Amino acid sequence: MMDMKVIEGGVTAAKGFQAAAAAAEIKYQGRTDMALIYSEKPCKTAGTFTTNVVKAAPVKWDRAVVESKVKSQAVIVNSGIANACTGEEGMSYCRETAKEAAKVLGVDEAGVLVGSTGVIGMQLPIDRIKAGISKLADAKKGDLASGTEAAKAIMTTDTEKKEAAVTFEIGGKTVTVGGMAKGSGMIHPNMCTMLSFITTDAKISKKALQKALSTDIEDTYNMISVDGDTSTNDTVLLLANGMADNKKIKVGTPEYDLFLEALHYVNETLAKKMAGDGEGATALFEAKIIGASTKEQAKILAKSIVCSNLTKAAIAGHDANWGRILCAMGYSGAEFDPEKVDLYFESAAGKLKIIENGVALDYSEEKATEILSQPEVTAVADIKEGDEEAAAWGCDLTHGYIEINADYRS
Amino acid sequence: MMDMKVIEGGVTAAKGFQAAAAAAEIKYQGRTDMALIYSEKPCKTAGTFTTNVVKAAPVKWDRAVVESKVKSQAVIVNSGIANACTGEEGMSYCRETAKEAAKVLGVDEAGVLVGSTGVIGMQLPIDRIKAGISKLADAKKGDLASGTEAAKAIMTTDTEKKEAAVTFEIGGKTVTVGGMAKGSGMIHPNMCTMLSFITTDAKISKKALQKALSTDIEDTYNMISVDGDTSTNDTVLLLANGMADNKKIKVGTPEYDLFLEALHYVNETLAKKMAGDGEGATALFEAKIIGASTKEQAKILAKSIVCSNLTKAAIAGHDANWGRILCAMGYSGAEFDPEKVDLYFESAAGKLKIIENGVALDYSEEKATEILSQPEVTAVADIKEGDEEAAAWGCDLTHGYIEINADYRS
Repeated sequence: MMDMKVIEGGVTAAKGFQAAAAAAEIKYQGRTDMALIYSEKPCKTAGTFTTNVVKAAPVKWDRAVVESKVKSQAVIVNSGIANACTGEEGMSYCRETAKEAAKVLGVDEAGVLVGSTGVIGMQLPIDRIKAGISKLADAKKGDLASGTEAAKAIMTTDTEKKEAAVTFEIGGKTVTVGGMAKGSGMIHPNMCTMLSFITTDAKISKKALQKALSTDIEDTYNMISVDGDTSTNDTVLLLANGMADNKKIKVGTPEYDLFLEALHYVNETLAKKMAGDGEGATALFEAKIIGASTKEQAKILAKSIVCSNLTKAAIAGHDANWGRILCAMGYSGAEFDPEKVDLYFESAAGKLKIIENGVALDYSEEKATEILSQPEVTAVADIKEGDEEAAAWGCDLTHGYIEINADYRS
Repeated sequence: MMDMKVIEGGVTAAKGFQAAAAAAEIKYQGRTDMALIYSEKPCKTAGTFTTNVVKAAPVKWDRAVVESKVKSQAVIVNSGIANACTGEEGMSYCRETAKEAAKVLGVDEAGVLVGSTGVIGMQLPIDRIKAGISKLADAKKGDLASGTEAAKAIMTTDTEKKEAAVTFEIGGKTVTVGGMAKGSGMIHPNMCTMLSFITTDAKISKKALQKALSTDIEDTYNMISVDGDTSTNDTVLLLANGMADNKKIKVGTPEYDLFLEALHYVNETLAKKMAGDGEGATALFEAKIIGASTKEQAKILAKSIVCSNLTKAAIAGHDANWGRILCAMGYSGAEFDPEKVDLYFESAAGKLKIIENGVALDYSEEKATEILSQPEVTAVADIKEGDEEAAAWGCDLTHGYIEINADYRS
C-alpha cells in the first residue's frame, strides 16, 4: 500500500468544505433530517447513479448537473422523502431547492446538487425544505463535528453514521479525500448504493475525477447487497475543489493512481459500513472468491453468495450451512467446477476449512459456530482455476429486517 | 377452457398408479419421510431439472434415466437428506437405491427414478433407505389415500401436502393427469422447482411428453419464487403409462393441446400451492403484468416483483407500499415507461387503483390494507404498451422464514 494516512472525519476533512445538519420535519420529528455540504470554492463534480429504470427526480437533476460544465458549491440532502415516482411536480421541487440554496448561500443555482432518500411516491413539503435550507446556511462550519452532524442527518434506518477520510501527498502537498454515506435497505446497487457523498481538495481534471469514480464503484458499492433491491435513488457524488493546490491530477499518471487508491479506501470503507449496517443486520458478511479464472467470474460468484436469503439467514443463526453457499454459487450464472471447491469460514475467532473438493470435511461444528458468531464473518471459496479474486459484502437476514420493512411507512 | 374436470387426488388419480409412504428415520423421527410412486405398467418419462451448476446426485441420476430409452415403473423419494454435494459416494447411493427397488418391486433397475430433498452435504444412511424401500413395496396401493400419504411423506418445511388432478376425454377415453409436489424453501426455480411428480395414464409419444413438460414449466414452476434461491435438487418428473388406451397423443395435434392444457392445470395448481406455502408465508402473492409488448417482458417484470424482499415484507405488513413494486419493476432489466404505469391491488376483499401514470392516486389506505390482509393478494400493473401479459407467484416475507432458516439444520 502506498503512503496513505487514515484520518478522522468525513465530508469536511478536505480543505474548504463545510457542512451542517438541520431538523426540518420533512418526515421525522425530533431529529435532524436535512444536511448541507458546502465548498468555499466551486467544485468539479463526478457522479454515478442508479441503473433502475425508475429514477427519482434528484437522480435526474444531479445527473444533468454533473454532465454540464457548471461547477458546484452546494449539496442539499433530505432523509425523509425520496422524491421518486413524483412526476413533474417532483422535478419542480429540485428546481426550487436549487434556487433557494443559491439565493441563501450565494452560489450558482445551476450547480446546486440535491439528494433525497426515504418514502417513495410522496411529494416534498417544499416550504419546510426552504426553511431547512436557511437553517443549514446559518449552521454550516468546516470542523469535523459538522461533517459528523451531516452524516447523522442523512440516516434513515441506519443505526450508525458512516464516515471515512484519508490523506496522501503529491509533491509535498497534502491531498484529502473524505466522505459520508447512508444505507441501509433497498440496497443492491447496480452502479452505486444509496447516498454517498465524497469530497476532496485535490486539483484534478473533470475527466480523471469521473473516471476514478466510475472505475472504483465497480469494486466497492456495486459489490454490496443488503436485500437485492436496487433503489430508485442510488447516488454517489464526488466533489473536488482543488484547494490542496497539488500538481493537477490527470488520467494515466502516477498521481491518478494515488488518488484512485485513496478514493478506493474511502469508498470501500463506506460500502462495508453500509453492508454491515444493513436493515436488521447483526453481522457484516464478506464472501471472497479466490483462485478464479477471471475477475468477473469471481465477482459474480461472490455477489451471489451475499445475496442469498438462505445463506444470510444461516449467518444470522451462526449455522455453518455451507451447502447454501455452494448452492448460491451454483445458480450465480458463472461456470465453475463444484467438485474442485474448497470452502473456509474466517473471522476474529479463527479460520476453519469446511469443505475440500466439494465434499464436507469432518470439521468441528462448535468451532464453526464460534467463528460465525463474530460481528464480521468471511466465507472464502477457492475454486482453483487461476489467480483472480473478488470480495462482496452483505449482512445477515434477521427478524429486524422484517420488523423494519413489514411496516416501514407507518 | 376445454372440457376438463378437476378431480380429487394426486399421483394415484391416473389408472394403474400406486403409491406408499414409510417412516424410515432418514432425518425426521415419528413421521413418514420416504415415498414410492409405482406404475403397474412401464412408463415413458419426461423430466426437467435444476439449472444450478451444483446438481444433486439424484438430479444427475434421473436425467440419465429420462434421456435413456428405458421405461420407468418406480420413483423412490426421501425428504430428509438432499444427497447434494456428496460426490461419488452420493452417486453410489442412487445406484444402490435403484438396485434395491428393482429387486423388491420386480422392476427394471435401469428405469428406477430417485428423488431427494433436505439437508445438503450429508450422506444418505443407505441401510435405512433400503429398509424403507421394503416397507414402501409392502404398503403400495392404488387408492387416492395412498397418493395423499406419499404427498405428505415428501414434505419438509411445507405446512400442507400439495396434490392436484384433472381428467379430460380423447375419443371417448378418459385421460387423467395428477401430481404431487413439495416446497417450500430454496425456491426460485430456473427450470422447475423442488420436487414435483406428475403421473398420467395418457398414451403419448415420448417426444410429446417431454415437449409438453418443457413448455409448461416456463409458465408455472419457473414463475414462482419463495426466496430467490435456486435449489440443487429441483426436479419435475412426468410419468405416462398409456393405460387410458386413448389414441396416441403426438406433437402438433388437437389432442396434444388438450393434454398440455390438463398438464398446465396440474402444474399451475401445484406451483401456486408451493408459492403460497413458502417458508413462513402467510399469503400467496401474485404479480400480474398486463399491457406488455412481449410475453418475455411481462414475465421479467412480474417475477422481479415477487422476488423483491422489500415488496414481500410490505405484503407481510399489509402495507400498500407500492413504491417498492415500481422499484422492483425498474431494476428487473426489462424496459418500460414508469410514467405510463397503472397499478392495482386486488383480492377477495376487492380491487383498488393505487397509481395512475406512475403517480399515486388519493386512494383509501384503509381499503388497501383490507385488500392486502387476505390470504391471496394480487398486484396488477398495466404498462400500456400492448396485449401481452404474465403472472408470477410468491409469498410474503415473515419472521417465520427467519425462524425456519436461521437454524434449519439443528
